[in-house]
Amino acid sequence: MPLQTEINVAVAQMNVVPGHPDKNVKNMVRMINEAVRNKDDVIVFPEMAVPGYFLGDEWENEAFIKDAFEYNEDIINASGGLIVIWGNIDIDWNQLNEDGRVRKFNAAFIAQNGKLIGKTHKTLLPKYREFEDARHFYSMRKEAWDNKIPAEELLKPFTLKIKGKDVKLGLILCEDMWSDDYSIDPVKILQQHESEIIFNVSCSPWTWRKNDKRHRVVADRLKDYPVPFIYANNIGIQNNGKNIYLFEGNSTIYNQDGSIFNVAHNYTEELLRATITNKVQKRRSAMPVSKEMDSFELYQGLTFGIKKLFESLSNPSVVIGISGGIDSALSATLLSLALGPEKVYAVNMPSRYNSETTKSAALKLAENLQINYASVTIQESFDYTLKQLNNTVFERMDGSGSKTPVCLSDLNEENVQARDRGARILAGIASALGAVFVNNGNKTETAIGYATLYGDVNGAVSILGDLYKMEVYQLAGYINQIKGSELIPRETMSLPASAELSAAQNVDENMGDPVNFPYHDKLLRAFIEFRLDPENILEMYKAGTLTKTLSVNHGEFESYFSDVRSFIDDLEHKWRLFKMSYFKRIQSPPIIVVSKRAFGFDLRESQNGVYFTRRYKKLKDELLVNNRGK
Amino acid sequence: MPLQTEINVAVAQMNVVPGHPDKNVKNMVRMINEAVRNKDDVIVFPEMAVPGYFLGDEWENEAFIKDAFEYNEDIINASGGLIVIWGNIDIDWNQLNEDGRVRKFNAAFIAQNGKLIGKTHKTLLPKYREFEDARHFYSMRKEAWDNKIPAEELLKPFTLKIKGKDVKLGLILCEDMWSDDYSIDPVKILQQHESEIIFNVSCSPWTWRKNDKRHRVVADRLKDYPVPFIYANNIGIQNNGKNIYLFEGNSTIYNQDGSIFNVAHNYTEELLRATITNKVQKRRSAMPVSKEMDSFELYQGLTFGIKKLFESLSNPSVVIGISGGIDSALSATLLSLALGPEKVYAVNMPSRYNSETTKSAALKLAENLQINYASVTIQESFDYTLKQLNNTVFERMDGSGSKTPVCLSDLNEENVQARDRGARILAGIASALGAVFVNNGNKTETAIGYATLYGDVNGAVSILGDLYKMEVYQLAGYINQIKGSELIPRETMSLPASAELSAAQNVDENMGDPVNFPYHDKLLRAFIEFRLDPENILEMYKAGTLTKTLSVNHGEFESYFSDVRSFIDDLEHKWRLFKMSYFKRIQSPPIIVVSKRAFGFDLRESQNGVYFTRRYKKLKDELLVNNRGK
Repeated sequence: MPLQTEINVAVAQMNVVPGHPDKNVKNMVRMINEAVRNKDDVIVFPEMAVPGYFLGDEWENEAFIKDAFEYNEDIINASGGLIVIWGNIDIDWNQLNEDGRVRKFNAAFIAQNGKLIGKTHKTLLPKYREFEDARHFYSMRKEAWDNKIPAEELLKPFTLKIKGKDVKLGLILCEDMWSDDYSIDPVKILQQHESEIIFNVSCSPWTWRKNDKRHRVVADRLKDYPVPFIYANNIGIQNNGKNIYLFEGNSTIYNQDGSIFNVAHNYTEELLRATITNKVQKRRSAMPVSKEMDSFELYQGLTFGIKKLFESLSNPSVVIGISGGIDSALSATLLSLALGPEKVYAVNMPSRYNSETTKSAALKLAENLQINYASVTIQESFDYTLKQLNNTVFERMDGSGSKTPVCLSDLNEENVQARDRGARILAGIASALGAVFVNNGNKTETAIGYATLYGDVNGAVSILGDLYKMEVYQLAGYINQIKGSELIPRETMSLPASAELSAAQNVDENMGDPVNFPYHDKLLRAFIEFRLDPENILEMYKAGTLTKTLSVNHGEFESYFSDVRSFIDDLEHKWRLFKMSYFKRIQSPPIIVVSKRAFGFDLRESQNGVYFTRRYKKLKDELLVNNRGK
Repeated sequence: MPLQTEINVAVAQMNVVPGHPDKNVKNMVRMINEAVRNKDDVIVFPEMAVPGYFLGDEWENEAFIKDAFEYNEDIINASGGLIVIWGNIDIDWNQLNEDGRVRKFNAAFIAQNGKLIGKTHKTLLPKYREFEDARHFYSMRKEAWDNKIPAEELLKPFTLKIKGKDVKLGLILCEDMWSDDYSIDPVKILQQHESEIIFNVSCSPWTWRKNDKRHRVVADRLKDYPVPFIYANNIGIQNNGKNIYLFEGNSTIYNQDGSIFNVAHNYTEELLRATITNKVQKRRSAMPVSKEMDSFELYQGLTFGIKKLFESLSNPSVVIGISGGIDSALSATLLSLALGPEKVYAVNMPSRYNSETTKSAALKLAENLQINYASVTIQESFDYTLKQLNNTVFERMDGSGSKTPVCLSDLNEENVQARDRGARILAGIASALGAVFVNNGNKTETAIGYATLYGDVNGAVSILGDLYKMEVYQLAGYINQIKGSELIPRETMSLPASAELSAAQNVDENMGDPVNFPYHDKLLRAFIEFRLDPENILEMYKAGTLTKTLSVNHGEFESYFSDVRSFIDDLEHKWRLFKMSYFKRIQSPPIIVVSKRAFGFDLRESQNGVYFTRRYKKLKDELLVNNRGK
């Protein structure tokens, strides 16, 4: 049904502060007043704009949700002639959720002229990845089922007066638009009820390379029944403890045909305004996808996330260990660019195993970034700890006099160095400066546990924990390119990756980490993001599709594995490391999320050891028999 | 409908190893063969007996679930004349779940004579606390809704031949029995369909003081429609990374009237056998609740959990720091009793602040337990670290020459000691011995963050992390009582709790932790388990019901707080600590779960700072105004 009148819409792409209704409502009232001054007809805020969205189990705190709900009054009172649409929690104190607690809804409200006009409850509740709507909220779908009425009866557009005309306004929340895998389609229902305009009140975290998909989905939804479609998202960061999500906003006003009429600036609080008419208006194209834009998107997200995170902690300084290697160099560079160099305190912590090459690369990085720098040796304390522990003898206190001496292996000695750096120096300095210190691990290392617990696993936040090693290089190269200078020193970019914890890891002799990053990045991504099993990897290998499916350079793959057995040994080794190293991830810091599957509460794991399926074992036997002697 | 024949039932209370279908099915086939030899009619296994239940997102690994599903064949083939009922995953490869992945069900299967006879899908999917059924599985309820048929049509008893008679056998899974808060009642549906016997295939974690409730619920369900009710649960431990759940089994055969006919031994793998007839048979009473049984239940759970956990790690030795205080003493005692004293390596790590009193209590504990013992001073390394850090100066690398010296405060110095112990000594010794080391924190300290990250927060597992301080004393006292000796030294039981990290924490001068455990335990329990807000606490205070509701001794409460302001200051202080210290819990070890709400994936939190509701502020103002001058 065509629009009965032009509508001046303001999309309030606000910065939502999770858990702080007071701050959010103050901000909302400010934006409402601005829209009133602009003589807009409608202002629309994001999903859960009042309480925030990722609150963990704080939804069970009834005083808190009541507080958030009652803030609706402040919004309603501010509405004036403006139609205000916003997301908040709705509560039915007379009914229970299936967990026996009070019944709660993820809701969108509409007010005008100081009165509540209507509300709708989210129909589709996501419960995958980090999403836990179904844990806390009752769905509109269940309300329909319980009352034995079709969902179509509950999900109808609201008829509102705009410029003296009746306009049918459809209202949904976030997932309601992503209905492909559900047995109900809220957008279609609203279209069938002849909505003249549809608002989607959202709280959609950013992930790298995702935005294009929403544009395609919207266009697809509007294909058969064109209607202007308004997508309101928030900016800011929200977390579930183990993961920090970025919200870029990207609020979009779509034309009737799904083309883009107007888009808000990413990571910017703004009122995106437009006059919606019956015509398709200037079609903007989505952001072009180029190599540079690809890196830019990542760069913009991470620097925004760092800035917001430190803001939420009242802007402390940051301490970071810099080794001269690529991970710490990129972390330090991002911190310096996001927070300002004066906030960054970089420490180089050499033992006898650290080369002059990496030590000077670390110093050079600090000079390039103009950050604060100190070098603190760990050699003496490392030696002392070795001596003290190796001299420790346990005595069995049962009168037998039996003794157990402590004796550190080479690997134990490597870990002593890492813990000395992470728990003694970095934690000590950070607490003395009233600062936080950061973790520099990347996703590849995190996946295989190539890090020492209570050592380099430490830190208040992991900045690169959702980037594979080759993505670390991509972003580092991009930053050097846009800054027109070698912020990250050339030697850091070109040295072999190495932990430098023993003589066997000498970078000057080109001896680095026991990982082939181009291949293992892809293999681990298959485990983590594609949820593939070693069985699937073997099947693809057997079918000759492995390198293509994983996007691995075939020549490199061939040169890396001399035969089937070495490939299978490596596959099992990496699967074992991936599964067994979860004990470290349990105690690792929050990770800024970039990918479509991050370690933490996004990818949930259990400590259940390693398992190979029967089919895996059969395939392995076949491959080894067929290749015997090769 | 009365039973058409006597039925010889065997409840297979098996030890389920999560993530290892091969091991579980081997065990199941062994138990099936035993039941065949016994000439039983029916054997029933627990829910998800094949794959395990707490698997994190391993449910998304299609090769794994296919492997688990295909193990059904091994079970079916072993059935012979026996009716075999078991829990496993069911998969519909032609449909999708709402997350876009293949459709999965939490299912129970029935086989007889080498053939699959039937299966049922779980109707009610829990999604609170640690439960994530709704994240991974499609429910029978949704199948009914999608097909627009009443759930009654899909949930019918199976008619099976037993001793030549047709018997209507009802089959449900775990939560299906706990339907009070759902809009559908599977037990009732099966009763309406005239089931003659109902089997509940379960995977129910143990929590302290819970069992009585199930007995009441079953009795209530059978009140209007009596029918024999068989509850099959597993034993063992399963985890979600942050939490380790204990399964005590307690499989129960209920009479028609809900009275207990027979119960399996807790924490014991067994075939619980009984001949079910039309008569109510010997009524057993549930375990009596006495002070001793109360402590025994806790003691039995924790020692079982420790034993199983170390078994799952291939029985390593364990390293533990013992300070002479109650927490480490109880941890060490439980470890020694569960694993044997020869497995326990206890380390006392004094600095100058540790009294002779506590040092000698630690030694005495080691002697009493006859464990391995060593004393390793941290004074030299502590002094070295202070000197090295206090001599560190950062230089700003922008040419300005500006310098920032590092200067440790008294609190920083306390933390240095804790990290020296946790990350340098304990982690170093544990890795050298190929052992794990444990965390000794209790729930009270964990709740307020009274521990040092990368110091005493460290460890592979927290044994007491779900016990409040007064519960630690309760269990310690109980162990001394049942062992007929003072395993845990008298001075450890009577000393003030103290971190002994500064001269201000001298136990000989009765200066301990800044916590009033009897009150704060209860206050924190209100925050954590009752999900109360400071607003609720103030309301109860105002109404005069606070001490009664929290079960706090009124006289103690009065003597602890001199006036309203000191009570409110303390309330806000503890709420702040509770909220702000979550950053430590993100990086803390897995906790063995005891309570109805444990930190980890049971109580999910976000790092969102501290919030006080408007109503809280109003109440506070009222209370302070009314009490001005008091």
